[in-house]
Amino acid sequence: MEFDTIAAISTPMGEGAIAIVRLSGDDSIQIADKIFKSINGKKLLEVPTHTIHYGHLLDPKDGQVVEEVMVSVMRGPKTFTKEDVVEINCHGGIVSVNRVLKHVLKFGARIAEPGEFTKRAFLNGRIDLSQAEAVMDLIRAKTDRAMNVALGQMEGRLSKLIRGLRQEILEILAHVEVNIDYPEYDDVEEMTHKMLAEKAFYVREEIKKLLQTSEQGKILREGLSTVIVGRPNVGKSSLLNSLVHENKAIVTDIPGTTRDVIEEYVNVRGVPLRLLDTAGIRDTEDIVERIGVERSRQVLKEADLILLVLNYSDQLTAEDENLFKVVEGMDVIVIVNKTDLPQQINMEKVNLLAAEHRIVTTSLLEETGVDELEEAIASLFFSGAIETGDSTYVSNSRHIALLNNSLSTIEEAIDGVEMGTPIDIVQIDLTRVWELLGEIIGDSVHESLIDQLFSQFCLGK
Amino acid sequence: MEFDTIAAISTPMGEGAIAIVRLSGDDSIQIADKIFKSINGKKLLEVPTHTIHYGHLLDPKDGQVVEEVMVSVMRGPKTFTKEDVVEINCHGGIVSVNRVLKHVLKFGARIAEPGEFTKRAFLNGRIDLSQAEAVMDLIRAKTDRAMNVALGQMEGRLSKLIRGLRQEILEILAHVEVNIDYPEYDDVEEMTHKMLAEKAFYVREEIKKLLQTSEQGKILREGLSTVIVGRPNVGKSSLLNSLVHENKAIVTDIPGTTRDVIEEYVNVRGVPLRLLDTAGIRDTEDIVERIGVERSRQVLKEADLILLVLNYSDQLTAEDENLFKVVEGMDVIVIVNKTDLPQQINMEKVNLLAAEHRIVTTSLLEETGVDELEEAIASLFFSGAIETGDSTYVSNSRHIALLNNSLSTIEEAIDGVEMGTPIDIVQIDLTRVWELLGEIIGDSVHESLIDQLFSQFCLGK
Repeated sequence: MEFDTIAAISTPMGEGAIAIVRLSGDDSIQIADKIFKSINGKKLLEVPTHTIHYGHLLDPKDGQVVEEVMVSVMRGPKTFTKEDVVEINCHGGIVSVNRVLKHVLKFGARIAEPGEFTKRAFLNGRIDLSQAEAVMDLIRAKTDRAMNVALGQMEGRLSKLIRGLRQEILEILAHVEVNIDYPEYDDVEEMTHKMLAEKAFYVREEIKKLLQTSEQGKILREGLSTVIVGRPNVGKSSLLNSLVHENKAIVTDIPGTTRDVIEEYVNVRGVPLRLLDTAGIRDTEDIVERIGVERSRQVLKEADLILLVLNYSDQLTAEDENLFKVVEGMDVIVIVNKTDLPQQINMEKVNLLAAEHRIVTTSLLEETGVDELEEAIASLFFSGAIETGDSTYVSNSRHIALLNNSLSTIEEAIDGVEMGTPIDIVQIDLTRVWELLGEIIGDSVHESLIDQLFSQFCLGK
Repeated sequence: MEFDTIAAISTPMGEGAIAIVRLSGDDSIQIADKIFKSINGKKLLEVPTHTIHYGHLLDPKDGQVVEEVMVSVMRGPKTFTKEDVVEINCHGGIVSVNRVLKHVLKFGARIAEPGEFTKRAFLNGRIDLSQAEAVMDLIRAKTDRAMNVALGQMEGRLSKLIRGLRQEILEILAHVEVNIDYPEYDDVEEMTHKMLAEKAFYVREEIKKLLQTSEQGKILREGLSTVIVGRPNVGKSSLLNSLVHENKAIVTDIPGTTRDVIEEYVNVRGVPLRLLDTAGIRDTEDIVERIGVERSRQVLKEADLILLVLNYSDQLTAEDENLFKVVEGMDVIVIVNKTDLPQQINMEKVNLLAAEHRIVTTSLLEETGVDELEEAIASLFFSGAIETGDSTYVSNSRHIALLNNSLSTIEEAIDGVEMGTPIDIVQIDLTRVWELLGEIIGDSVHESLIDQLFSQFCLGK
């Protein structure tokens, strides 16, 4: 395919040492050449591919220096987009990088839309749709495990599974065709039914298996929205601090890296918790008293995990009991805090109220029980077992929806087979499953969907 | 010089398409080679300099993929630090880039301190100290003009001027030496005095010229801290919005670029205004009433520019008059807003109160008068003339302090000459000036100063 030449800032905005303006398209090298003066007089149009050149961006009109840059020249098809790509590395200031971008736009590039580079990689056939989506997941990954899932998907692990399933369905469909073309052979029909049922069972099981990974996959990808509730002074802030300090690894423990951007995430044994900010937590302090049990349930219902904190050194109050009513039916871990103080709480009653919820006793002051709490969180969502990086998780909502749709459709097909529905009716369902699975990897999707998908990308990708 | 191998994230933190981990030092290529598997099997140790290689970072222990990357190999001395440099371009996510950094650290690199790459460029003699400082100014530049000043300084424009002055002083000192060595020649002393006075006058005038640029230079570099004051409902928010919307150019008008990071800056005809945030402005609404004239003066005294807004359609109040007292002696522009409504204000009184301050009448509702206001701001700080990009501005506080120190020392030397002070006493002053100027370009600075300077840099530069 042939497109115009696009350009965008491909590094995060902000102050840093280096920023990159990336160009892709037939004219990208020519555009860069027009405005670049290499320190050793080389012309970019003549340099070998995958080489780096130091020099200055100039205004060709008056020779004024626009910026000091390093220019990387990569000729297609061995590039991210399969097109000619030029990366201009300039100083990482906001004025600097915008100036460079404006300059290449002035000399013939068009501003790229969000995700347009990746979209070209897809349209030019270098990656399929699920791989393209994995690129964005990788960038947004909040934990190492989420990144491994995205890496696996980007390397085509999910695509391979999906292609396998589609191949199975194609084979069934081919048999069905034979059956339709030669209806005079009775035994063909019988054989087809048998084979069809077998293959359809297999496909159904495989889709189920993939869907089973999706809950964990979504958690890995999006994080568990977590709320800490409890009466005033039971230790909610201490719990928050303890989780944040014990689990700083979500960014890194390397000194000097900015943590602000994602400070609301903590990584508990590979489970990313998106903790409601302290303001939000303060709001839940007297939430039940203020707005009642039912409305409190509404407020909290978006949360994936509730940490309900009780005071070991105080008796249970009506407010505590109300909290249990509020969180009924949600994923809850009950934390009985302040075991460093004399017991006043009636643990039997706590056990009764907690019902099936796990109870952890802690003294956040003395830093006891935190390990057990973390283990409880991890086991609640990963059944305790930390998976290796090799598993394929379905984590993308679009994929999950398509798989669910595929599952119900294949079940209809199976029902049809079992009820002896004419084969050419079953064929319609099977073709639909083949198409639905195809949408995951982008083999059968509408252009508008593609546009919409890539528009969610960040700029410059 | 020889150093260990350092590594850091060189792009701003955040989500973007691409992030860079940069290594510099003798082992950088070897470290990268250990953990990188090129798609075509090439070994980084064997590839030519300034080439780019696609492949994967692996854990050599188990072959697990750490990240998909592009690796740029640049061998010294033609690099930023004059050392071997490797740039690893990975996906621009926080987990991804931290994972890559951790991986290179694990395999032998040391985490770089802020500014350490630029420090090495300085210590290895590729750039002098004022050029190194310009690198940081360039990254932090808020307007095109500020960037041009930094670019000029980075290209060595200031260094050249300083070196010229130091050369002049060296020539004087050489003459003084002759005079001291041959005191028996009377006419030598006389000639020396004459020549010395002449040369010293010249150096003094050049230093003065540089210092004259410093006020504008500092404004360009740091922005004008600007406060809008006025009674409630005179149009302060409209003024803020008008300045922000009319002057969005400080970042760019390119769609999609993030503006949040520097939203507090607006670029008014090349003058960067650092507007106090709306919260700050709200606070000034009744500041005078709350804390009185004297304390209000204290609060506002850090501001470089006060925009005092009055209501054209209302009579002057005691509060308005108090505001004039508060801002007495500051740089003020008086804005009489709401000329779209019937006049109630007594303009003669306004003229009287404004005294030497400029008065601009506006209707922010009808968008009249804003041009005149902008012109007033620009002329207040640049005498109306917009300089071309070629001027050399001194913008750095350290440089300004050194130049001021040089100026007073050369004046002492001149006084000495005029009062007939023995030449070897004058010599001490002149040597001091030579040293002070040398500190600007880093020819005569203490190691601790260098450490302190570079520690203000951003990480990865």
